[in-house]
Amino acid sequence: MPVGTVGSVKAVHVSELKEDIGAQIILGNTYHLYLRPGLDILQQAGGLHRFNSWNKPMLTDSGGFQVFSLTENRKLSEEGAEFQSHIDGSRHFFTPEKAVDIQRIIGADIMMAFDECTPGDADYDYAKKSLDLTERWLDRCLARFRETECPYGHRQALFPIVQGCVYPDLRRRAAENVAAKGADGNAIGGLAVGEPTEKMYEMVELVNEILPKDKPRYLMGVGKPENILEAIERGVDMFDCIMPTRNGRNGQIFTKQGVMNMRNERWKNDFSPIEEDGASFVDTLYSKAYLRHLINVNEILGLQIASIHNLAFYIWLVQEARKHIIAGDFSEWKPMILQNVTRRL
Amino acid sequence: MPVGTVGSVKAVHVSELKEDIGAQIILGNTYHLYLRPGLDILQQAGGLHRFNSWNKPMLTDSGGFQVFSLTENRKLSEEGAEFQSHIDGSRHFFTPEKAVDIQRIIGADIMMAFDECTPGDADYDYAKKSLDLTERWLDRCLARFRETECPYGHRQALFPIVQGCVYPDLRRRAAENVAAKGADGNAIGGLAVGEPTEKMYEMVELVNEILPKDKPRYLMGVGKPENILEAIERGVDMFDCIMPTRNGRNGQIFTKQGVMNMRNERWKNDFSPIEEDGASFVDTLYSKAYLRHLINVNEILGLQIASIHNLAFYIWLVQEARKHIIAGDFSEWKPMILQNVTRRL
Repeated sequence: MPVGTVGSVKAVHVSELKEDIGAQIILGNTYHLYLRPGLDILQQAGGLHRFNSWNKPMLTDSGGFQVFSLTENRKLSEEGAEFQSHIDGSRHFFTPEKAVDIQRIIGADIMMAFDECTPGDADYDYAKKSLDLTERWLDRCLARFRETECPYGHRQALFPIVQGCVYPDLRRRAAENVAAKGADGNAIGGLAVGEPTEKMYEMVELVNEILPKDKPRYLMGVGKPENILEAIERGVDMFDCIMPTRNGRNGQIFTKQGVMNMRNERWKNDFSPIEEDGASFVDTLYSKAYLRHLINVNEILGLQIASIHNLAFYIWLVQEARKHIIAGDFSEWKPMILQNVTRRL
Repeated sequence: MPVGTVGSVKAVHVSELKEDIGAQIILGNTYHLYLRPGLDILQQAGGLHRFNSWNKPMLTDSGGFQVFSLTENRKLSEEGAEFQSHIDGSRHFFTPEKAVDIQRIIGADIMMAFDECTPGDADYDYAKKSLDLTERWLDRCLARFRETECPYGHRQALFPIVQGCVYPDLRRRAAENVAAKGADGNAIGGLAVGEPTEKMYEMVELVNEILPKDKPRYLMGVGKPENILEAIERGVDMFDCIMPTRNGRNGQIFTKQGVMNMRNERWKNDFSPIEEDGASFVDTLYSKAYLRHLINVNEILGLQIASIHNLAFYIWLVQEARKHIIAGDFSEWKPMILQNVTRRL
């Protein structure tokens, strides 16, 4: 899922997302959308789909992650989280019920439960207390979800989130609790937040042995191409990450042959296409040297090209993964493609 | 001509310029391109057309205007202009010959003569001395132009520029001198640089009585929709201006019904299309409220939408002007359309 933080996937038209990149679903950040444009506007618009003209599936996070990572003067309590806006310092209070209410108003097809995203280096006691809270909050989210409806008449799903940090017994307990809720899909949170990568894979594997296989399993905030393929091998179906767009804006270009840093002198007079057999129209329309120049002089077009290219690459990668799963040769394909795409060019 | 300062029309793909906006020709700034990416890169690329993938006509200015407006520690002499780069303070020296040589390397289809753009408030003595210099520089440009060739094999034209500030006798003398050169096209410079608008129209009218009517007449750096239509009525065929893109990035949107400032609260919950019968795909894809939100939160997509929209509007406006010239009712159409497009919404 390309990430559309404040209601737009940065530097990319919705028509490009659909027709050039082939995205099937995008993500919006509840925290950002709640602050700007705000719920009044979104409600009057008839929800985010109508507001930003994205007429395909959309998912919103619960806002929890941003509350815990972006805001100041946070106060966490049983009831919820009080915080100050990173924009204007105004005070707000999110509860599990409010996170559901807000996401009802945003109107995304998939809403996420409000949880505490436990830091990757939390000790066992903290992680356990945090999970206890997340589980009580999940029940409150689900209660609110059952009592309410989408104000625009379409169906909305609510995905619970498995926490438990890097502790196998906590993750197992969390996955069992989540699986028992019978939701339309389930998420794995609190990974790729500072823990060793091997721990992440271990947790994904363990959790996915418990989560139902016939419902989408969503690994939140991941990640690099290698993380995505490793997680797919362990049963994950959905991902979101700002990496293709944010790293693109910083000049990092992912290709089938490896990763290019466009700020590197090396591309200065390489007039070959960005990617000869790339997945987007920008790949043969523009050259490496031109993209390097644009990034180098901070031209907006450079951000556009890098963003479209990287998103198209990510979508291509997971489409290929799907093909190889169906063909039954994923395990042979994965090391080969990883050797290529993770190479530094 | 949409302006592509450093080799890209800011926030717009070349495919959008061609297919959505319908631009026939774009402009590049010699001063900026000379500094970045630099002549080495442009020469190795095979010229700017190949570098930025714009395979339609292109015009470059001579660099003079930016030398006189952007740089520090300028020293103007008979020989040329010495200046320090606004990027890194490095010292450079432009002469009429060098301006031609640089534009040969950039490879634009239309090159401009190196001149001094006399300030709009210059006194008569200054304006006369400045014109004397511009005329001597023009002869040196033309000599160099005749001695050299396009390094990429295609044809390049060189347009002389009429200066003379707001003084009728200087403008007349300058126009006669320029007309006598028999160039492929001719330009009017040194207007829209601080003089009263009525003076600008007066000078355009006077100069266009002298410049040949069967060659394109190009009014440099103009302007607002009303300036363009007034100048067209006085015989001008070509324009360039950063207004549609720069003002667009600041939230000013030109439409057939008037001008909108998207930062205005008024658009906050106006969910109607940006322009119902607008000239670009963005006009009905996105709403006013959404564009306002994007501009408001500094999302790159807002800059893209505003730039495409405004460029498409400008191209639509001059295409309409052409239709009405051909239909013979330009003078009746002009006040009507101006009343609409200059309205503040």
